[in-house]
Amino acid sequence: MSNDRSADRFAVQDVMSSYACGVDERDMTMYANCFADDVEVVGFGAETVNGKKAWVEYVTGALERFGPTQHMLGPQLVTFDGNDRARCRTDVQALHYLKEPAGQILTLWATYTSDMVRTPGGWKIKRHQLTSRGTRVW
Amino acid sequence: MSNDRSADRFAVQDVMSSYACGVDERDMTMYANCFADDVEVVGFGAETVNGKKAWVEYVTGALERFGPTQHMLGPQLVTFDGNDRARCRTDVQALHYLKEPAGQILTLWATYTSDMVRTPGGWKIKRHQLTSRGTRVW
Amino acid sequence: MSNDRSADRFAVQDVMSSYACGVDERDMTMYANCFADDVEVVGFGAETVNGKKAWVEYVTGALERFGPTQHMLGPQLVTFDGNDRARCRTDVQALHYLKEPAGQILTLWATYTSDMVRTPGGWKIKRHQLTSRGTRVW
Repeated sequence: MSNDRSADRFAVQDVMSSYACGVDERDMTMYANCFADDVEVVGFGAETVNGKKAWVEYVTGALERFGPTQHMLGPQLVTFDGNDRARCRTDVQALHYLKEPAGQILTLWATYTSDMVRTPGGWKIKRHQLTSRGTRVW
Repeated sequence: MSNDRSADRFAVQDVMSSYACGVDERDMTMYANCFADDVEVVGFGAETVNGKKAWVEYVTGALERFGPTQHMLGPQLVTFDGNDRARCRTDVQALHYLKEPAGQILTLWATYTSDMVRTPGGWKIKRHQLTSRGTRVW
Repeated sequence: MSNDRSADRFAVQDVMSSYACGVDERDMTMYANCFADDVEVVGFGAETVNGKKAWVEYVTGALERFGPTQHMLGPQLVTFDGNDRARCRTDVQALHYLKEPAGQILTLWATYTSDMVRTPGGWKIKRHQLTSRGTRVW
């Protein structure tokens, strides 16, 4: 095995980019495909969400409040643990146009900590944690 | 040919980064160099703009309204079609300081869909489409 | 030597991502590790700051005014000069929650020009320049 993890770096980056694209384009099949079936999701509410199915339902419901959204991502810091595990730190600035009151924006500045595993279907998020820096409705 | 498209991924990324750098530094030679001669540009106004020359003139004119600008880009989702074609999805948050009224900011949140082709002079944008999520003057 | 600089591109990107992570997580060891001992820092104030020690002290002091921060980075334009030198252009949108008045945000839109050198300890920033596009307290 080469020490060059560039192909894995892009694969891991693409999972996060698909996460953003999936949610912003309301392509929930693309979005769901980012996660392992037994993903654990922490920090989006008081309760941990367990499992891809429950998480995608949660997000689908949350999106009903919003018009257009944009999840602007930064580059990732990635730490590999062996060949098949990676921890990814990604800054996000999430724009959400509110339906009520119309035209108002909810901006969330946050950091994702996403633990990924390599599977036969590609890298998948096994644990996903949101750390909020702050929010503003404006 | 290796399956590792990392070098192409960076080359494609650099086209988008040069697009942002070119416009923000008002280096219209760098900016023009991102495009194929016969580029088609869609979504920046009611009309499609055809050709690099017409597009660079359009942008040069549009910039006259603005002081400093910043085109903050996200990472790209890239789909290659064979060896020499790529479709790139890039989120952008475009900051424009207005000259009038001075100090006011026009922010555009949008997504670029950029179809690129490999040429003897490197990857070039052959079709460039803007999908706006929203704008705010503030 | 291969022409594929992908591994170096990711290494250079990781320096900038560590810069952002270090300052935002207040991990000043990670932050300091991004710089050469004799780094020259330009554009953050009227005076050039010379040396890693002085610079990290400056930043540590400046952070006392702020609650949470986020340094959202764009992708980098990188120009290599031989094997061991690189000039990196990185857009940044820096969010700073002010302690006084509480809840107010200072946003800085800027570009980093970071000259790096390869050392036995990895790529390090040898000269770091900030070019501001503008700031807003809101």
